[in-house]
Amino acid sequence: MTIRLDGLTLLDNKAGSNTKRVRMYLAEKGLEIPRVNVEFSKMEHRTPEFRKINPMAALPVLKLEDGTYLSESYAICRYLEELHPEPPLFGATPRERAIIEMWNRRIELDVASYVTSFVKHQQPFFAEVLTQVPEYVEACRKDALKKFDWLDADMAGRDYIAGDAFSVVDITAYARIGTGKHVGLFFTDDHPNLLRWWERIEQRPSALA
Amino acid sequence: MTIRLDGLTLLDNKAGSNTKRVRMYLAEKGLEIPRVNVEFSKMEHRTPEFRKINPMAALPVLKLEDGTYLSESYAICRYLEELHPEPPLFGATPRERAIIEMWNRRIELDVASYVTSFVKHQQPFFAEVLTQVPEYVEACRKDALKKFDWLDADMAGRDYIAGDAFSVVDITAYARIGTGKHVGLFFTDDHPNLLRWWERIEQRPSALA
Repeated sequence: MTIRLDGLTLLDNKAGSNTKRVRMYLAEKGLEIPRVNVEFSKMEHRTPEFRKINPMAALPVLKLEDGTYLSESYAICRYLEELHPEPPLFGATPRERAIIEMWNRRIELDVASYVTSFVKHQQPFFAEVLTQVPEYVEACRKDALKKFDWLDADMAGRDYIAGDAFSVVDITAYARIGTGKHVGLFFTDDHPNLLRWWERIEQRPSALA
Repeated sequence: MTIRLDGLTLLDNKAGSNTKRVRMYLAEKGLEIPRVNVEFSKMEHRTPEFRKINPMAALPVLKLEDGTYLSESYAICRYLEELHPEPPLFGATPRERAIIEMWNRRIELDVASYVTSFVKHQQPFFAEVLTQVPEYVEACRKDALKKFDWLDADMAGRDYIAGDAFSVVDITAYARIGTGKHVGLFFTDDHPNLLRWWERIEQRPSALA
């Protein structure tokens, strides 16, 4: 069953890992929100008008019923989770929610951050966003692979990153680690558990969202 | 009034921005948890025994009543908030919580991350944690200052980062941006709003926690 949330508007774009996270989340929850496309290719997200909506010049942004613009993909998912708790993707008890939060932060701050920096320090699209340091790119690859080594070993015996159930952490990891895939940074044969995990997530209908 | 939570144990250390976050949070909430010190100076956090408790080899860690070890400072604070919601530091309504989450992520991922990298890429203590790239250090300073410029302008007219009330975001920013202060990266005279905000937070008793 799909629930349509017509009072909200999602400012979206098909490229980018953060927009992907929200679309995957909506698909998993069976939620549908009217979308407006903001064109990265025309740099619509870097205009003064858009910066009033989100000063970080980034997508996605959720326009709430009272006109508030909410940005940051994880904040958007968490907001929707609170209004539509079933099926729970952030955990069903305080303990579960804590473990999921812990894993989400490990993935974002300690694993995917190297993948993101690997991408952002070499692609011309991001030259305006940060000071690109070519020497940093290979260091990020090296550290990302080390983190994959650790995560692969840690994942032995469980199907999803935060435990035995699919959660928002799998969305975070799939979308953010996925950005490295197109530019040659991904799991290797040394990461059988992570490769199996990737296939498992890829087979979910939400992966196409 | 102080509430003592004797069934929990906090693995702590007086150095480090993440342990500071949890101590400040506890002080603001009037919560007290028995603490065990893990010595950074003796590298106790990098032993095989400690890595079983937290594979990220980092503090703080909260031991729950059932023996679960919960790491990641923000996950710890959020867990405690759920059990002890008053006074609310993560917001009191879904909308408030969403805005606070958005700001926490902006500060962590887009502002403090440059400060953290500035520190981690130059201090010998972190040489084992990541591949240090000397060329990256000054790029981080430059980008951190740009982010301070933006945040300073954005803060005009409000007392706290996420709005008119003190929240967990102020703890995040105070603890994480504070790590740059000791190594010469901080707000300048170009950031009057941020300097006033810093003083405002510094005057709270929790800043000494």
